[in-house]
Amino acid sequence: MKVFLAQQNYHIGNFALNLEKMLQAVEEGRILGADLVVFSELSVCGYPPRDFLEFEDFMLEAEASVDALTKASVDIGILVGTPTRNPQREGKDLLNSAVLLYNGMVHGITHKSLLPNYDVFDEYRYFEPAYNWNVIEFKGKKIAVTICEDIWNLGDNPLYRVCPMDKLMLQSPDLMINISASPFDFSHDEDRKEVVRLNVLKYKMPLLYCNAVGAQTEIVFDGGSLVFNSDASLFKQLNYFQEDSFLIDTNLLFVENKAANLDTPPMLNDSMRVSHTDNLLEIIDYLTASDNIEQIHHALVLGIRDYFSKMGFKKAILGSSGGIDSAVVLALAAEALGAENITSILMPSGFSSSHSVDDAVALSKNLCNPYHVIPIETIFETFLQTLNPLFEGTSFGVAEENIQSRSRGNLLMAIANKFGYVLLNTSNKSELATGYGTLYGDMAGGLSVLGDLYKVQVYALAKYINRNQEIIPKNIIVKEPSAELRPNQKDSDSLPDYSILDNILYLYVEGRKGPKEIIEAGFDADLVKRVLKMVNINEYKRNQFCPIIRVSTKAFGVGRRLPIVAKYLS
Amino acid sequence: MKVFLAQQNYHIGNFALNLEKMLQAVEEGRILGADLVVFSELSVCGYPPRDFLEFEDFMLEAEASVDALTKASVDIGILVGTPTRNPQREGKDLLNSAVLLYNGMVHGITHKSLLPNYDVFDEYRYFEPAYNWNVIEFKGKKIAVTICEDIWNLGDNPLYRVCPMDKLMLQSPDLMINISASPFDFSHDEDRKEVVRLNVLKYKMPLLYCNAVGAQTEIVFDGGSLVFNSDASLFKQLNYFQEDSFLIDTNLLFVENKAANLDTPPMLNDSMRVSHTDNLLEIIDYLTASDNIEQIHHALVLGIRDYFSKMGFKKAILGSSGGIDSAVVLALAAEALGAENITSILMPSGFSSSHSVDDAVALSKNLCNPYHVIPIETIFETFLQTLNPLFEGTSFGVAEENIQSRSRGNLLMAIANKFGYVLLNTSNKSELATGYGTLYGDMAGGLSVLGDLYKVQVYALAKYINRNQEIIPKNIIVKEPSAELRPNQKDSDSLPDYSILDNILYLYVEGRKGPKEIIEAGFDADLVKRVLKMVNINEYKRNQFCPIIRVSTKAFGVGRRLPIVAKYLS
Repeated sequence: MKVFLAQQNYHIGNFALNLEKMLQAVEEGRILGADLVVFSELSVCGYPPRDFLEFEDFMLEAEASVDALTKASVDIGILVGTPTRNPQREGKDLLNSAVLLYNGMVHGITHKSLLPNYDVFDEYRYFEPAYNWNVIEFKGKKIAVTICEDIWNLGDNPLYRVCPMDKLMLQSPDLMINISASPFDFSHDEDRKEVVRLNVLKYKMPLLYCNAVGAQTEIVFDGGSLVFNSDASLFKQLNYFQEDSFLIDTNLLFVENKAANLDTPPMLNDSMRVSHTDNLLEIIDYLTASDNIEQIHHALVLGIRDYFSKMGFKKAILGSSGGIDSAVVLALAAEALGAENITSILMPSGFSSSHSVDDAVALSKNLCNPYHVIPIETIFETFLQTLNPLFEGTSFGVAEENIQSRSRGNLLMAIANKFGYVLLNTSNKSELATGYGTLYGDMAGGLSVLGDLYKVQVYALAKYINRNQEIIPKNIIVKEPSAELRPNQKDSDSLPDYSILDNILYLYVEGRKGPKEIIEAGFDADLVKRVLKMVNINEYKRNQFCPIIRVSTKAFGVGRRLPIVAKYLS
Repeated sequence: MKVFLAQQNYHIGNFALNLEKMLQAVEEGRILGADLVVFSELSVCGYPPRDFLEFEDFMLEAEASVDALTKASVDIGILVGTPTRNPQREGKDLLNSAVLLYNGMVHGITHKSLLPNYDVFDEYRYFEPAYNWNVIEFKGKKIAVTICEDIWNLGDNPLYRVCPMDKLMLQSPDLMINISASPFDFSHDEDRKEVVRLNVLKYKMPLLYCNAVGAQTEIVFDGGSLVFNSDASLFKQLNYFQEDSFLIDTNLLFVENKAANLDTPPMLNDSMRVSHTDNLLEIIDYLTASDNIEQIHHALVLGIRDYFSKMGFKKAILGSSGGIDSAVVLALAAEALGAENITSILMPSGFSSSHSVDDAVALSKNLCNPYHVIPIETIFETFLQTLNPLFEGTSFGVAEENIQSRSRGNLLMAIANKFGYVLLNTSNKSELATGYGTLYGDMAGGLSVLGDLYKVQVYALAKYINRNQEIIPKNIIVKEPSAELRPNQKDSDSLPDYSILDNILYLYVEGRKGPKEIIEAGFDADLVKRVLKMVNINEYKRNQFCPIIRVSTKAFGVGRRLPIVAKYLS
């Protein structure tokens, strides 16, 4: 049997576009002589459709797309991901399904059993799990079709009580096909490949794994679809971070089985949910490892590009401070959208160091992107005069610092509104964690590029960006970080050294360690308590923050959901 | 058996405070001669604890509280809600449990079977459901203990495949006790009472229902705990919107059973998820019905009060425009926090009508709250001059309008930062739905008071506030709504009449109707498409909005989760 894997980038709710892409792949597959064309999970509507699934009208659109694909299935099988209706009265009304269409009919159907409902996933919000399992017979082969999470229930402490592949094995399948929408994080690629391999080792037959690609607001799907031989050797891996396709003759995948017995690493399933390193000394190395940073780079560029193209925007704006964060965002945005489409605004105040504007200008000259200098001194003075009746007799403090930051936010948004640009946010994860940022000021923007990168990772990414030539001026990289909102301010006035801070933050945010464990790991007790308190009392700020392109196992925003009104470690 | 129901207001993660409250109730119950003291769902940690449940340290704190209650259970039973560990290897690691403590031991335990995972609920994110069911024997009675949603699986299209009470009936219980954290919406109270009554009708025994009370960020728990006799007549209802307690001798609840057979209204379970009225003409009447508005009033006052007290704030600030929204917020905040604790800031511009400041001043004089007038004209002009090099030759538009709104936001936040106030947001649901507001401008704030009220409801609430005396000046109520950001601007320039708009929005947001159905209901096709598009393309704005006190079945924010990057009805 010849199978054509179509790794595509869908637009959520854009049924016409998604259908057109799929029909095109069907025709391509037909020309190549494919028996079956395979698409990724919920390909019809895009993943994750979230509460759109509660709209009957949305379901009707999905069904209309499946109908159109059914008509196109003459002499060629189409395995498509779509929400379907639960025929049972009991339970939720929808199922997350893989439907095999052939010769104008529904030839077979499988529903997802294991519904991820952690981190960025909310599938049990919409879907009832499957309670029975059948292989789909097609062209003389019995295919065990599963959907994404269905093959992840491995290890000693599985997250679910059933293992769908064990059930399907009762019907002696010949071949496994898994359709997925498996998101990127900088450690997930290896986990995913290992999980697919372990399934092949366990069930001793080839596995075709078709993943989605493309960014959906915060979540980046990285593609990298897989074809494994029956002996658990890798036959083919599709490209990362771009659309790709591949025709496989499945007969080639049945090779002499040299596979050893199943050797599942303990708790593999939990690897999605816990820290990847328990060795404290290695955390910063792990966060900044060059292969991780390279992947993060690709994910961020795709994240920016898809946000703009899918939202229908072309041009971005950002505040270019002469600091490392805005420099990295500018370089990434220039790569994603073209330097000519990014306008930098340099907004010095009386507290800006002399080199701030020079460095930001040098950066824009390197990148050849348009920039404007708009000093905020007069605006700041006007605010102070206006507020003088209320503020008289008080001393300069956070209020005055924030006025500057919010005046910059106002200027950036005004220019964005005037010319139809989108404001890119430049906050990093260390700042968001500790609340070291001004709501409606430097926390403004439509998309956060670095919100899931700790400061140490921002530096590593700058180095990566400069790998071939100096794009980000060296002075920006070596200078001491500063918000420049009061005379001679330095980040280190308010925050510990980033290599220590980021270590503590990683243990708390990604690792979910408590204060006792973090202190026992060798950090100062008062510092740990102070940092954890900063994280917890600033939930209200992060709650109003824009979407963050997710690159880690635990990103602020959609993947980390905490109450705002609470008193815990605070 | 004498049971003491303790309807309490918990603080999420504040284990010390919650424990102290519970121990106090235990002592109170002991003095009154109670055999058993009953608390609400997850009382130990507060509901909903959300991702705090992923922290081992948080679980240890919960277990320490249960230990302390165990010690206090000498000669008195304590039924407490707490997360516990799943003893099974398979499935999620936690259970949502009701533990009966007695004489220093765990006397019995029940786990929640039906885990709500819709709207504001995310329980399957954390908990494994129960798969077996046992009554708890205590003082010679067999008690069927269930947790909140466990008794909601009624009707023709139940949301879950099991009905825990049916299972418990196999052990012939004498009495039902349900511990809940059931949130308020202005139609939920009647549903809840009916669900409890239907359970009594079906199972023909008394039911004690202990609900939580108090606001947890967006979600208001309204209390109103219930005691039903075995014949399904109401024995006692505890107070709404405040802590309360009650001692019942359960012997009094076994009355001659006059109950008819079960007569479940169809699809009752879905009442949580669909519109309460299918009669189009009644929608505005329903939204503004005086008993609904009265309940909403109480919920908002509690929502404000608990936000401030639990966050440790005393004083609020808001922009008082002379319009209806800010007037209603000011009146509610004055009731919740004391008028002396609310500072109004009046920020007229050159586009403000002459009566705006006068009306806002009259309002503050009625309420006796402090106010300041800070014209924004100079700030606005300074922004325009600063931006002139970029804006020259363009005409006045949205960018200029937003500069004014964001300058007001900056002033309000500066004063809030300077004096430690919290900015109250004054946007309403109609504005949030259509994107008729300025991000970082009038959309700024720490808490949204009216974000779940359509404009027609804001007017009804103003009328309710004025029920005994004129608090909100009549002129504020009768004037035509305007943002006053350009000369002679009126809301009606951009939006349809609110009675039409709110009708369409209700059908779309609460009712999840598609364009076809709304048009068929009698609205202009172009208008419907325009409104639905406005709702969908403004998801990015709502995504950055502050928490909204939830009063409807479908509030923006935590209860309605849509992708930002999407193309559906837009």
